[in-house]
Parts: sequence; structure tokens; C-alpha cells
Amino acid sequence: MIGYAFMGAAHSQAWRTVNRVYDLPARVRMSLVCGRDTAKVAAAADRLGWEAHTTDWRRLVESDEIDVVDVCTPGDSHAEIALAALAAGKHVLCEKPLANTVAEARAMAAAAATARASGVRSMCGFNYRRVPAVAMMRRLIADGRLGTVRHVRAAYLQDWIVDPQFPLVWRLQRDRAGSGALGDIGAHIIDLTQFVTGQRITGVSAVTETFVKERPLSAASSGLAGQATNGAGPVDGHGPATGTVTVDDAAVFVARLDGGALATYEASRFATGRKNALRVEINGSLGTVAFDLERLNELEFYDATRPAAEQGFTRILMTEEDHPYMSAWWPPGHIIGYEHSFTHQMRDFVEAVATGVDPAPSFADGLQVQLVLDAVIRSAELGSSWTDVEPTLEAVPA
Amino acid sequence: MIGYAFMGAAHSQAWRTVNRVYDLPARVRMSLVCGRDTAKVAAAADRLGWEAHTTDWRRLVESDEIDVVDVCTPGDSHAEIALAALAAGKHVLCEKPLANTVAEARAMAAAAATARASGVRSMCGFNYRRVPAVAMMRRLIADGRLGTVRHVRAAYLQDWIVDPQFPLVWRLQRDRAGSGALGDIGAHIIDLTQFVTGQRITGVSAVTETFVKERPLSAASSGLAGQATNGAGPVDGHGPATGTVTVDDAAVFVARLDGGALATYEASRFATGRKNALRVEINGSLGTVAFDLERLNELEFYDATRPAAEQGFTRILMTEEDHPYMSAWWPPGHIIGYEHSFTHQMRDFVEAVATGVDPAPSFADGLQVQLVLDAVIRSAELGSSWTDVEPTLEAVPA
Amino acid sequence: MIGYAFMGAAHSQAWRTVNRVYDLPARVRMSLVCGRDTAKVAAAADRLGWEAHTTDWRRLVESDEIDVVDVCTPGDSHAEIALAALAAGKHVLCEKPLANTVAEARAMAAAAATARASGVRSMCGFNYRRVPAVAMMRRLIADGRLGTVRHVRAAYLQDWIVDPQFPLVWRLQRDRAGSGALGDIGAHIIDLTQFVTGQRITGVSAVTETFVKERPLSAASSGLAGQATNGAGPVDGHGPATGTVTVDDAAVFVARLDGGALATYEASRFATGRKNALRVEINGSLGTVAFDLERLNELEFYDATRPAAEQGFTRILMTEEDHPYMSAWWPPGHIIGYEHSFTHQMRDFVEAVATGVDPAPSFADGLQVQLVLDAVIRSAELGSSWTDVEPTLEAVPA
Amino acid sequence: MIGYAFMGAAHSQAWRTVNRVYDLPARVRMSLVCGRDTAKVAAAADRLGWEAHTTDWRRLVESDEIDVVDVCTPGDSHAEIALAALAAGKHVLCEKPLANTVAEARAMAAAAATARASGVRSMCGFNYRRVPAVAMMRRLIADGRLGTVRHVRAAYLQDWIVDPQFPLVWRLQRDRAGSGALGDIGAHIIDLTQFVTGQRITGVSAVTETFVKERPLSAASSGLAGQATNGAGPVDGHGPATGTVTVDDAAVFVARLDGGALATYEASRFATGRKNALRVEINGSLGTVAFDLERLNELEFYDATRPAAEQGFTRILMTEEDHPYMSAWWPPGHIIGYEHSFTHQMRDFVEAVATGVDPAPSFADGLQVQLVLDAVIRSAELGSSWTDVEPTLEAVPA
Repeated sequence: MIGYAFMGAAHSQAWRTVNRVYDLPARVRMSLVCGRDTAKVAAAADRLGWEAHTTDWRRLVESDEIDVVDVCTPGDSHAEIALAALAAGKHVLCEKPLANTVAEARAMAAAAATARASGVRSMCGFNYRRVPAVAMMRRLIADGRLGTVRHVRAAYLQDWIVDPQFPLVWRLQRDRAGSGALGDIGAHIIDLTQFVTGQRITGVSAVTETFVKERPLSAASSGLAGQATNGAGPVDGHGPATGTVTVDDAAVFVARLDGGALATYEASRFATGRKNALRVEINGSLGTVAFDLERLNELEFYDATRPAAEQGFTRILMTEEDHPYMSAWWPPGHIIGYEHSFTHQMRDFVEAVATGVDPAPSFADGLQVQLVLDAVIRSAELGSSWTDVEPTLEAVPA
Repeated sequence: MIGYAFMGAAHSQAWRTVNRVYDLPARVRMSLVCGRDTAKVAAAADRLGWEAHTTDWRRLVESDEIDVVDVCTPGDSHAEIALAALAAGKHVLCEKPLANTVAEARAMAAAAATARASGVRSMCGFNYRRVPAVAMMRRLIADGRLGTVRHVRAAYLQDWIVDPQFPLVWRLQRDRAGSGALGDIGAHIIDLTQFVTGQRITGVSAVTETFVKERPLSAASSGLAGQATNGAGPVDGHGPATGTVTVDDAAVFVARLDGGALATYEASRFATGRKNALRVEINGSLGTVAFDLERLNELEFYDATRPAAEQGFTRILMTEEDHPYMSAWWPPGHIIGYEHSFTHQMRDFVEAVATGVDPAPSFADGLQVQLVLDAVIRSAELGSSWTDVEPTLEAVPA
Repeated sequence: MIGYAFMGAAHSQAWRTVNRVYDLPARVRMSLVCGRDTAKVAAAADRLGWEAHTTDWRRLVESDEIDVVDVCTPGDSHAEIALAALAAGKHVLCEKPLANTVAEARAMAAAAATARASGVRSMCGFNYRRVPAVAMMRRLIADGRLGTVRHVRAAYLQDWIVDPQFPLVWRLQRDRAGSGALGDIGAHIIDLTQFVTGQRITGVSAVTETFVKERPLSAASSGLAGQATNGAGPVDGHGPATGTVTVDDAAVFVARLDGGALATYEASRFATGRKNALRVEINGSLGTVAFDLERLNELEFYDATRPAAEQGFTRILMTEEDHPYMSAWWPPGHIIGYEHSFTHQMRDFVEAVATGVDPAPSFADGLQVQLVLDAVIRSAELGSSWTDVEPTLEAVPA
Repeated sequence: MIGYAFMGAAHSQAWRTVNRVYDLPARVRMSLVCGRDTAKVAAAADRLGWEAHTTDWRRLVESDEIDVVDVCTPGDSHAEIALAALAAGKHVLCEKPLANTVAEARAMAAAAATARASGVRSMCGFNYRRVPAVAMMRRLIADGRLGTVRHVRAAYLQDWIVDPQFPLVWRLQRDRAGSGALGDIGAHIIDLTQFVTGQRITGVSAVTETFVKERPLSAASSGLAGQATNGAGPVDGHGPATGTVTVDDAAVFVARLDGGALATYEASRFATGRKNALRVEINGSLGTVAFDLERLNELEFYDATRPAAEQGFTRILMTEEDHPYMSAWWPPGHIIGYEHSFTHQMRDFVEAVATGVDPAPSFADGLQVQLVLDAVIRSAELGSSWTDVEPTLEAVPA
């Protein structure tokens, strides 16, 4: 595993747990973790349960003892690491968004397609596909329970940078993060809604906004050479230095899906009081599903084929044996948390790798999300004019 | 009152009730109701409590015994009736949307401005402003409790035409209704969000859709000459005649407000399971309010100035004496219904007329909503390109 | 109508509205209202819409022009008025609880049985039976949708006397009100749960409590001779006079129903934050229903016969044509309020009287509730020991 | 650890995780797990992550390599194992309920008090105390935010034996489980409400019920000699053998707390649709808290000292740094699950043991809950008559 911060901690918890909960054809060994600072990565390895640590990701990628490389770094290093890992014949799990640019994502999808021919597997880490309620939405729609999908209504709302004094961390810098709310959390709702509907976004009309344009440099961020040059203000004695926010605080767009549905998307870090509110509602001709990640154990399902007087939104507590991923956990009513989506992801990844099957979402799926993000950015730059999403077809040989 | 269907019944309930609940400087007499069919309007008068009835709206408008004209007809007759009533010196309450076209709305706003000089009052019936939770949202925002408004998230969702066999009623015909979901329910959320934020929409990027393009002619609608010519299909012996739906089933748009907020709007009659779900959420730098008309007695308020460990969405049950309009109703916890918004509207209208003050929303406000609707339609026609909302200033002399 | 305060206002709104909404075989004329103070009752008549007023309830009861007497006074006068009205051949609607004592209730039930032989109708005003969600619960249970009822869980929670400075109003005095939370709101949940389950409470084990034992005499209450003698403290110059609270602030009891269900009941005026929270949940072998009066337009229904993965609590928005009482109101999703339960009650009462049928709940039903209240009080006095509810059979000849 | 079924799996997940999330003064080694069947315990050790396994709990208790014994067996073996472990100088964590009888619990509390003198620690596993929302309730009440507590309203509702064909598992047999819903889940709400209020139950009036009195013997249960004799019906060829349910399906009781509050408790396995609904509401003179374990990341708090128009139930999402136990987990809005309560419990236990402090709840606390359970059973046997809870004082020397 490369990277050991928030995502690294979540992945580690999942790697530690997956064989304890699921019967799988292979056992996970947490052999090596990589980070830039020796002392810090050593502490992280000790804490998170990795056998060894290194500061050289190339050593990790090339190690003979390693079968799987898990990429948990910021987006600007995904492509380089993943390409090297695939070239070295390692199965790769790469965090979302797949890359910071379409060009990088195309290269990664192409490399993944090539590697697949040699039995090397790759997967993009859209972990929310593995939330039981999300998998259940997909099942219901695939089974025709919603009929023709008419509307997709998706928002991913957070509020951690509402305070203008919140510092200029790497997620607010384009060269590190690629984009802001759009790529960080907007990517999730793009993937998730396409996954559950089985449809793809064909075009968008978008607006983005940066509400707070200058922010204090944090001690941490100002100490990094790469960041200090990033629009930083004067660092004299008169108060804290500031830097320019180079990503979006919020992105909103309307879209059409290839099955005929009309969709709205909103990603924001300025939705005061909404902490991790990934909300999706999908209206079909026969029913509706609605979901909120802050209540991830619940799915609301409206079945319009029921008797009129009994129709309503059924709040399904997603803790039954019959629910996706849940037979291995606790008895009904005993809820799971955010981190379980990663355990479920690792289960599917391990099973796919061990049985020689391609896991999903593929790098091609990651590229397709990148193309939607790209269309959003282009539309926003062109006065919200309708912008088609480029097809992925040429990039990914069947 | 002219028109006695859904809106007429709701208004009648309010006219009957307003003096029974509120202390007002004037008493309402329900003297005359007008409709096109003598037998039907007679029955309506008897049932709804009107002293007399007529089929000639001009007689009503010109009657010496009448001080106030309440226009509850479809949008295609609003302008003609309201202009005549204002010319006759009657105070006018006109249902929303103010008119079917911008030109009509401009004429009405101009006539209202002229009439005002002679002490004649006019009001556009955006009744939801008088829902206590909505009035409370406005109060909180006006008091600075939300800080700078960053996001407006508004949807008005219904599902009454999801069934493709639902007939081609007048609300689905452009010449009668002006537009579909957009003008009928979209107008409400445009007015409501502008009202509570105190900001105006400056531009939009929009998409509209008609999911079901042909519908059966209903016995009622096919019997009307004006409707039978409206794209009706062949009426031979082979099944029911159908006609073309000439309005939108759904409209979605992103918008900017003049105070800097980013907004999303959605109006749909295809949101299965959502019956009358007017939902608004407004995020500011200091707090958030959220509202759903299906729970109109509740307001959710997030106050980000509270201690961190105690922050959360407070569900305020809007039945306290201190809440707008509520001191006259029942004890705390005893909820009110949809129709009460009209009683509150009549209270404010009667009080304004009796005390010689202009009620709000004015016809100019109604025109401004019309201009937003017009910008939405133009943007949708022009590939969602950004479209500025025309200013109302020239049309309405101060 | 006798009495014009809270209940009188609610009843008046219902009498004014019932013929405007429902097609009924008779028209209501609001002819005469009675109160103790001439000026006040005159003002009330004017405001609430009564044609005339009087301070002599006997005149009202004996008037030849009157067919129906509506008793909205405190419980201590119910028996005298209702008995006189029945004797005078008037149909009687009497607010709950039917009486302050079992003896009075027995006399009333007996008189009602006698009067019924002459075609005189009587009804006890448990208005919540007419909330659509409550009527729907009864329908579901009667249709076997819950299977065998195992648990009843009922609470009626308010908080209007949490403040110890809240004055000693008549509802806190045993000689006026009979009991406190128990008779005022506990009576509602006793009737409601028996109504929806079709079962009767057979025995109880109870505890009651008066948390605040002394309260200030209000200007209003201290001015009444009858109240000033009721345990009032010294009325010298040293601060407000206080009086002793002679009723329960809260009553809790467990019970068994004759169909085998186990039940818990709680009535309290000390549940801070709960304004009018009448909550009922009923668990059966095949399903569950749950209801909260603060969201009276919603019913939660769990149907355990649905496929396992889709089971959950369905929130039914009770605004559909197929729902009890709702076909006459607004379109789906347009909610109703507290007062509508009275309009529904008047509809059923008028229809029963006009068609010569006995309305429900009868005075015998009111007596039965009184017998449960009496068992609760006796159990509480006897160290919570199990106390059987006396049967009503002897008192009410078939 | 002794026992590896549901509780054993939950404890193992917590033991594996606790040092990965929290900085603690000691590291956990999962050295030895014990079960009755060699093959099964070997598989469990492998799966759950224990280094070794045994079928001899005495060997485990006496091992020199072991510092802590974690008792996860059914209640009938708690006392024997815990007493032996304490005698051997091991720190003991024992699952709830502490024992099946008051006598056993007294012996355990006495042994724990003795062992404490030698620095040996013991704890009873009421894990729900460590749910952040529960710890927050305690904090709010301890800080005086609720004022004087007036009402406790607690229910623990499940539905896993509603089906009469559900077999006679050990939890339905008195000799194994001690009691039914009462001891299994009722014990939790007794402990939890006493913990958060800081008050003790002084007396109860109770009813218990067994709705389904005969159940099929399961293959598993009928295979066990100890169970086959437990009221089993004939095992001939005519259908499955049945046995008598010897515990309660449901228990309801009213109670008084030593601080003056009135309380209701309900524990049931027949609440159809309620899967793991531990619900607590506590009303005080200044505020109210409400909690539901099915939404364990949320706490509802009503603060009656706020301005009247803004009062309401605030839904606090318990994922902030300032919330108990949460600083070590994920960013705000990323929820935790059921199992985390055990990780929190292990954190507190490890910290207490490592720093030489007594963890809570103690065995004396476990005994006190047992005394309440005993009072409930006695009251139910004596016609619900009021029954005082025996004091623990004599049993536990200070």
C-alpha cells in the first residue's frame, strides 16, 4: 500500500478484517507500506498493522514478494505508480478519482487493458458501490422494479471548508488534487448513479464556483516546496501568509443519461451542517429509491405497484442476510459503518484476483468518470453550454 | 371569485375561515362566484358558501357591491380578467403564475402600478410564502442567522402523470397552462427561494423534458372545442383518441442569485412517490435551513454557531405562539394543513387592503417570476446555454 | 354548543366546514352558543360564527329550534348537561372524557341507551378516531394484516406544565377536571388503542405522579370562588398565592387486552419537547403499525409478509383518495391539520343522526374508557397491584 | 477468550482493532480461544485471529501467558469461569448479564471486590455504554443540561422469534439463559438508563409473557443432551419434536428511580419489524434526549433553554472530534457501526488495566442490574405488585 493517511487507514482496516469476516479463496498479508517520511511511515506501519515499510514506492512496486499494489496517494501520483505496478505485473487497486487528467486516465485504462491479457487485474476504488444499500439499488433497478428511469437526483454535500480560515491543504490545490469538490466527491456520485442505473451520462451543463478564493497557508502546506509556489501571498511579518484556492468549492450540473433520464448533480464543500451527505434519489416509472450516506444502513424504496392505499417510502434497514454483503456480519438491526464499504471492496477484489476474474469498477470505468468530470469542467468554462461526454471506446480495446 | 375548482375550493375555505381565526379590520363577505357552466357554478356556490353565482365574469368585475376580485382560473385568462378588474377599481388577488406570457405579465404589472396610485391593491397568490416554516426561513435569513447564503437547493416533485394513460388535461396543454411543471410548480420554488433569501435569480442554464409525448384525450378535455384541435390524434373507432402533450413534464436548471449563491431547481411531475414534495434547502456560512411541504409543520435549522458537539439539524415544530401566523391557531403540537396557507394569505391581503398598504407579492413580483420562467425556457431551447433573466425595472414605474 | 374555549373553537371550525367539504344528507345550522359570561360569549358567537348566544344552558337544551347539543365544557358539567339534553330529546355530542366519575358516566350511558329507543343519538368526542391514519390502522388490523396483536405501546406526551411557575388552571384541579394527564390525554390513547385493535383492556398495573405539587394561582383561576378554596395558600402581600395541584402530572401503566396483547400506556405533561405527541405502535404476528400525532398525515406500516429483503417500515402519506375521509379534501400530498379530525367527526355524526344510525363511540364506549381510568387510579392507590377493569355490561342494556 | 459465537466474533473484531485505532499504554495479544468442540474452535481461532485454541477453559484461565480472560459464553457458565479466573489473578471481562441468578452475581461481585485489593480488574460487558450517543447522553445529564430528570422511557425491541416455527435455541431455555428477553435485552436498557441518568431503579411493577409456549427442537438443540430433557415433546415419526419455552418472550415494567423519575421499560422479541431497536428517551425539566440503536450515530437533544421559536429536537450526528470515542475514527459524517461499541469498550478496559484503575461497569454494577431483573421477575409472579429492588451494599465491601 502506498499512502497511509485517511484512505490508507481505511484500507488497512479493511485488509485486516476481510479474511476475518468472509470466506475467501486467498489470505491477505499486509507486507509493505510506503510513505515519504521514514519516521512517519514507520509509525503508520506499526499502528495500522503492516509488516514492513519503505519510502521508495518503486521498491514496493517491484518487490517479488508482493502480488497486489494498493494506491492511496493523492491523484497526482496515481498514474505513475499504477502504470509502474501494472508493468511489473502487480494487480492494482487504485483510489478514485483514477487520475487528475483525462490523458493520464486514458494511459492507465490502456495499460490495464494490456495487463489484463496477462491475467493482471486492476480496479478503481469507488468504495460506495459496496455499501449494501447502493448494491441493493442496483439490484432493484436491474430487476426492473423501478421501470423506466426518469430522474436521477444526486448530491454529495460536505461543509469542512465553510470557515474561510480553514487552511490551503492539498485538496484545495489543482496541481495536487486535480479539482476540488468535483473530483473528490462529485466523482463518487457520478460513478454511483451510473452504476446503479446501468446508464451513462451523455452530456452536461455545468456551473462551478470558488466561494473563498484566498486561504491561509497551513504550517504543513507552507512547508512543502511544491505548495509554497502555488499562488502564495507575501510571507512577511504582517499575519499569516495566504495562497490562492485553485479548485472549485462547489460544482452543480444537469445531465442526460443514455437511457433517457434527466439528472441533477451537486458536489459542495460549503453545505453547512451536511457532513458526508451523499444523497441519491432515482425516480422510475414504477418506483423510486432514495439513499443518504449519513444513514448508510437504510434504503428508501417506493413501489408504485403496491395497492394505492399502502404505497409509501419503505425504509429498509439493510442488515438482513438477504442484503448484499450482509450475511457475514451481525444479526439483523446491528448496523455497519463507513469503513465496511472498504472491507466489502477488498472482498470482491480478493475474490476476483484469486479466481482470475476482472473486478469492477475497472480502470476503463474510472476513465469514463474522468471524461464526465472533464465535460463538467469544459461546460463550466463555456458558459454552461451543453457539453457531450467523450466516449471511452477508442481508449479501451475490448 | 372567478373559478371554483381546486384553487377555488381552497380559496373559499380560506375566505370562510379568515375572520373566524384572526382579528381583522374588515369582514369578508363571499358575495359572488363565477364559472362557465350555470348548473355547476350554482352547485359550487351552494357548496362553497358563496351568496350568489354568475357565468359572466365581466358582470362580477363591474359589480358595485364587490370590492375584491379573486382570480382562480387557468393562466390563459388571468390577464384579461385582472386588467378589467383593476380598471374597474377592484382590489385583485390573482393566482400564480401571474400569466402565461411575459407580455401579459408586463401589462398586468403596469396596470397594477397605475391602479396603486388610486389606492387599488393587487397581489399574486404565491400562497406558500405564508406557510409558517417558510416565513420563519425568511426571518432567520433576514436576521443574519445563516450568514452569507452559498447554496439554494430547490425541488418541487409530484407524480400525478407518471402513468402514460393519464389523460391530456388542460394543465398539459400549452395554450391553457402556458407551461407544464415549470410554470405550475417551478414558479412556486422560484418565488419561494427568492422570497426567503431576499435575492433574485440573475441567470439560468436549463433542460426541460416531456417524457410522455402523446396521451389519451379525456372525455372532459376532448369535449372542449379549444382542446380538441390541440394536436389531437384520429378519433376513429380504433381505441381512444390521443393528443400531443405540449408542455414540459419536468424542468431542471442551475442558477445564480444576485447575492452570490449557486442554486439548483427541479420541477417534475414524474417523481414517483413524491406527491407534493416542495423541498428547499439553503446553506449559508453560519447555518442551514431545510423544508419539505409534505411536512409543512416542520422546519430544520442548523446553527453552526452552537457548540461543536451539540450542532445538528433542529427539527422545529412550527406550532408555537412565536411562530409566524400561529398565535391564532391551536395549542403547540396541534398541526395545521395545506389550506391554512391560504387563510394566512387572505389575512395579509385583507389587512393590507383595509389599512391601505400594498400586499406582497405584488404583480411586479409575479412578473419577475415570469421572467425567470422565460429565461428557463429560452435556455432550454438554446442547448442549456447560460441565459440572463431580464430585469423588471422598466416595466414597473415606482 | 355549550363552551367556546379551545374545544369550542375547534368544534366551531368543524361545524362551519363539514357541509362545505362533504356531501351530507343534512345541513348544519350553527344556531346557539352558550357560555357563562354574556360579553365573552357574545364575542365568541360573533367570531366563531354562531347565530345567537346565551348564558343559560338549560334554555339551549330545551329550545325547540335545536336538534343537536354539543357539550364542550370541562368534565364536571358533562353529566348534568348531557342528561338534560337527552331528556329533552336532543342528539348529543359530548367531549371526552365522558365524565369525571364512573357514576356519572354510568348514568350517562344508561340515559343514552334509553334515549336511543326513541331515536335520539349520542356520541362521545374521541376525535382522534377520525384521523385518517388512525382509521387506517383499524382497517389494517380488522383486515388481518397484523395477524395476532402482541404488543400495544401508547404514549401521549405533552410538556405545557414543565415550568413550576405555570399557574394552577382548571385542568390541574381534580374537582373540575376529574384527573390530570390521565383523563385529559390518557383517555385518548385508551380509546384509540381499543378502537384500532378491536380489543378491550382487562386489567392494569399503574403508577401516577405529581411532580410539582404547588403552583401559583393565576389571576383567572384565583378569581373564581370555586377554585380559590381548592387548597390555595395564603394570599397576603408576600408574593403570589399558590394552590395545591390535585391531579396527576403523569400516569404510566401496563395492561393486558382481551385478545392477549401486552400493553404499555403513558400520559404525561412533563415530557419536555413533546408538544402533542400521541404515539401508538402496535405489533402483530404479521406486521406493525406506528403513528405519531405530531405527524398526523403519516402512518408507518411494516408488512412482514413481504419479501425479506424488501421489508421495512413504509411511511404512508395519508392523503390519497383511498384513505379514510380523504377523498373530499385536496390532491395527494396536500396535508391536513389537527382540526380536520373534528370535521370528520362531525361528518360521521351528522350522517348517523340524519340516517338514523347510532354513531360511535357511544356513551357506553365513553363509560368503558372511564372504567379503565378508574382501574388505573385504583391500581396506583394500591401500590400498583394488578387491578381488573370493571365490565360495562350491566350498565348498558343491549 | 472463552466462547466464539456471536459475542466472541464481536469481541474478536474489537480486540484486533483496538490498538490500530487508539493509542494505548498496552498492546493486545490474542493468544488463546476456548470452545467445546476442537474442530470448531480451531476453525474459529483461524478465522477470528487467535494464536491458539483449546477446549479446556481451565487451562486457559490458569495459563501463565495470559493476563486477561474474556468470558463470552452463555450466562450459565459465567460465574464458574469468572470466579476461577479472578482466583487465578486474571483480569476479567465478562459479558452481560453478569450471571443467571442473584446468588451467582453476588458471589462474582464479592470475588471481584476481593481481587481488586490485589490489583486484579473486572468489568461487566454492557457495551452500549460505549456508543458515543449514549456516552453523550450521560455527559449532558451530568452537566445539568436536562435539569431534573422526570421520565425515563426505555424499550429494547426485537422480532427474531415472532415465527412460532423458530426453534427452541438455548436463549429460550431458562437453565441456559436465565431469562428471556428480560435478561438478554432488558438488562441492557436497565444498565444504560441507570448509567446515563446516574440514578438507580428502586422498585418495579412488572408483567411478563410467553406468547409462544411450544417450539420445535432445532437439530442443533435437540442434539444436546442438556437440552433434549428440557420439556421436549415426543420424538416419534409424526413431525418435529417440540419443547417448552421456559423464558419470557416479553417483559414490561414501570419503575421509579432514586432521583424521583418515573420510568417505563419494555423488552420484547415479538416487536415485528423492530430488529435491534434499543430506544431510550429521557425527559428532564430543562431538556430531553432520545436515542435509537438502529440509528446509533444519532442523538436527539431538545434544549428547552433555547429561544422559544427555535426549540426543537436537534439530531446530532455523533461523528465529530468532540464526541466521545470519535476523535480516533473517520472524518465527520463517516458513521460507525455496532461493533465499534466493543472496540470502545476494549479501549477503556485496556486503559484501566494498564494504568491500574477500576473499569466500569464493575461486577457490582452487574449485580445491581441482576437485582433489578430479580425484582421484575418477583413482581410479575406476584400480580405486578410493587417490588423494591434489593440493595447491593452488603454484598460489596467498599
